[in-house]
Amino acid sequence: MAKDAYTVAILGVTGAVGTRLLEQLAQSKIPVEKVIPLASSRSAGKTLQFKGQAVTVQEAKPESFTGVDLVLASAGGGVSKRLLPEAVKRGAVCVDNTSAFRMDPEVPLVVPEVNPEQLQKHQGIIANPNCSTIQMMVALEPLRRRFGLEQIVVSTYQAVSGAGQSAWQELLDQAQQHLNQETMTAKILPTKGDPKHYPMAFNLLPQIDVFEEDGYSHEEWKMIHETKKIMCNDMDDLSLKVTATCVRVPVELGHGESIYIQLADPTTTVEQIRDLLAQAPGVVVQDQPEEQIYPQPLTAAGKRETFVGRIRADAENPGAFNLWVVSDNLLKGAAWNTVQIAEELARQDLVRVP
Amino acid sequence: MAKDAYTVAILGVTGAVGTRLLEQLAQSKIPVEKVIPLASSRSAGKTLQFKGQAVTVQEAKPESFTGVDLVLASAGGGVSKRLLPEAVKRGAVCVDNTSAFRMDPEVPLVVPEVNPEQLQKHQGIIANPNCSTIQMMVALEPLRRRFGLEQIVVSTYQAVSGAGQSAWQELLDQAQQHLNQETMTAKILPTKGDPKHYPMAFNLLPQIDVFEEDGYSHEEWKMIHETKKIMCNDMDDLSLKVTATCVRVPVELGHGESIYIQLADPTTTVEQIRDLLAQAPGVVVQDQPEEQIYPQPLTAAGKRETFVGRIRADAENPGAFNLWVVSDNLLKGAAWNTVQIAEELARQDLVRVP
Repeated sequence: MAKDAYTVAILGVTGAVGTRLLEQLAQSKIPVEKVIPLASSRSAGKTLQFKGQAVTVQEAKPESFTGVDLVLASAGGGVSKRLLPEAVKRGAVCVDNTSAFRMDPEVPLVVPEVNPEQLQKHQGIIANPNCSTIQMMVALEPLRRRFGLEQIVVSTYQAVSGAGQSAWQELLDQAQQHLNQETMTAKILPTKGDPKHYPMAFNLLPQIDVFEEDGYSHEEWKMIHETKKIMCNDMDDLSLKVTATCVRVPVELGHGESIYIQLADPTTTVEQIRDLLAQAPGVVVQDQPEEQIYPQPLTAAGKRETFVGRIRADAENPGAFNLWVVSDNLLKGAAWNTVQIAEELARQDLVRVP
Repeated sequence: MAKDAYTVAILGVTGAVGTRLLEQLAQSKIPVEKVIPLASSRSAGKTLQFKGQAVTVQEAKPESFTGVDLVLASAGGGVSKRLLPEAVKRGAVCVDNTSAFRMDPEVPLVVPEVNPEQLQKHQGIIANPNCSTIQMMVALEPLRRRFGLEQIVVSTYQAVSGAGQSAWQELLDQAQQHLNQETMTAKILPTKGDPKHYPMAFNLLPQIDVFEEDGYSHEEWKMIHETKKIMCNDMDDLSLKVTATCVRVPVELGHGESIYIQLADPTTTVEQIRDLLAQAPGVVVQDQPEEQIYPQPLTAAGKRETFVGRIRADAENPGAFNLWVVSDNLLKGAAWNTVQIAEELARQDLVRVP
């Protein structure tokens, strides 16, 4: 039987995603008895607001999780690897927004609109998928179920906020430098860990995260492998082929995706897809080209839904279609999907370590 | 026999492409006896520089073409439709950078690296393809010839300069407004002709040109149909399938393209593609992910070449590959390709109306 109210810790609460975790939790259906904002020692002592109450950020330590029911984590993969097992040991169920546990076969990788049943097998940790994967799953799962999905070819247009608050600020600083006819200074993007940094403002960087040996970036690898884990976990569709090209664009908030799909049913029409997606959970269809209505990052920012438009048939390949999909990478791509998983855990009375 | 020197008129000389036509002509192998800068009455009287000499802009009229050998046109489709037949009537050969005559079966649509032989059948007008089509042709034609090309799925990341000088200025003005926390004013983009205008700075607009009835934008339609005309004109490859999604991005100069191709030869390797493109005319391979070397608009701007990188095999589809292609949309995408066609016409002694 579900608890009346939960003690919820937010790990990495001062980051771009963390601040939104606090905000989305406050707006959620989860009954919160107490919220515990956790971050690094640097941020300890800072005051944040939760439902009109001031809450003080504490340094995250293993002991921080004593008496905690639920942990929402977004402090980086290293921190999750180190602290989440400690939280589980203390009886807390953790929803992790980092890539630390995503491909662990023991860990459910969940998009509530797609595979909520996977939550039942959790061992204390549930992984939130990569931002660019989530919005694609929300848009494509209804099509996969109805028409069968054979292939996905995706090209992403990813916002800078996905690289964190400092990268976001770097974009704005560079834009102002460029408008002042000054040289743009680059210290973070495309990825902090790599030696070379390039200007992002008024530019395109076809590198998100580090590169693998096969030439794919880790972000591309994530989209391919997470998609298969989320869509094919029930093993009914191992034939699904996925390839991805991930590009960072000078946008603050809201990832765009140009998605080409081959459906199994060659008789599928644009109208069928539009009607199906109009009914799909978490999806808003914005597809009236004659009225110039289509998804845009500026209009998707701050919203929980995934917006789908530009739905077109590939006239030369029956069953093949192009779609343009946009969603707020910090909400559905991160904070909202994480809180949504927590809501589903509470609903299914799964906020306990087996 | 070729003339010793030509009288060359540039139509639309004050525009974003026109100014570059003048600059590229000055740097070309074409012996120029006299240059005649033409524009609308608004710009008549303005002074421009050509090879260190001041030249005065004249209003474009049918009589302007008397005694002209060669016309390089970029003043909009309507102007080309009205004035180029007048120029041809007066014995001038016209290379047109607008879409006015591109799909006319009588008019060669030429990328010099791909189909220069088509120039021989010209009747006075030669069409320069759409910017996003040209760079794709330069990158893919060597692969089509060697390995056979069955399918192209392209997603574009197109710079704002492709929409003209005023759209370019609008992007910069909006960026400054946004950085000043003011509301962005939009009067031109996505396309001047349509009723609705949206902010482009820090945004993505999946509309380039107007929409067709099938939901594809005219830009997408151009990429599909121009590709078939350029690559399949010799009818050896009518099996080529092409689909496109065109998106405007907040970049000033340099189009990016994420291209997925299915080659006929399933044994093709990334190394073979890299080696072949390294030898290909007009192509520069920038593909060392381990060194973070890949094409970027900021580094391609101002250059005549087409830059290709991020070459990756689709492990699940033998013969299928992803490529990332960037080129300066105002040079190879417009002014340079136009001047390059003129050079080829002079070289083949085809600067005469049959």
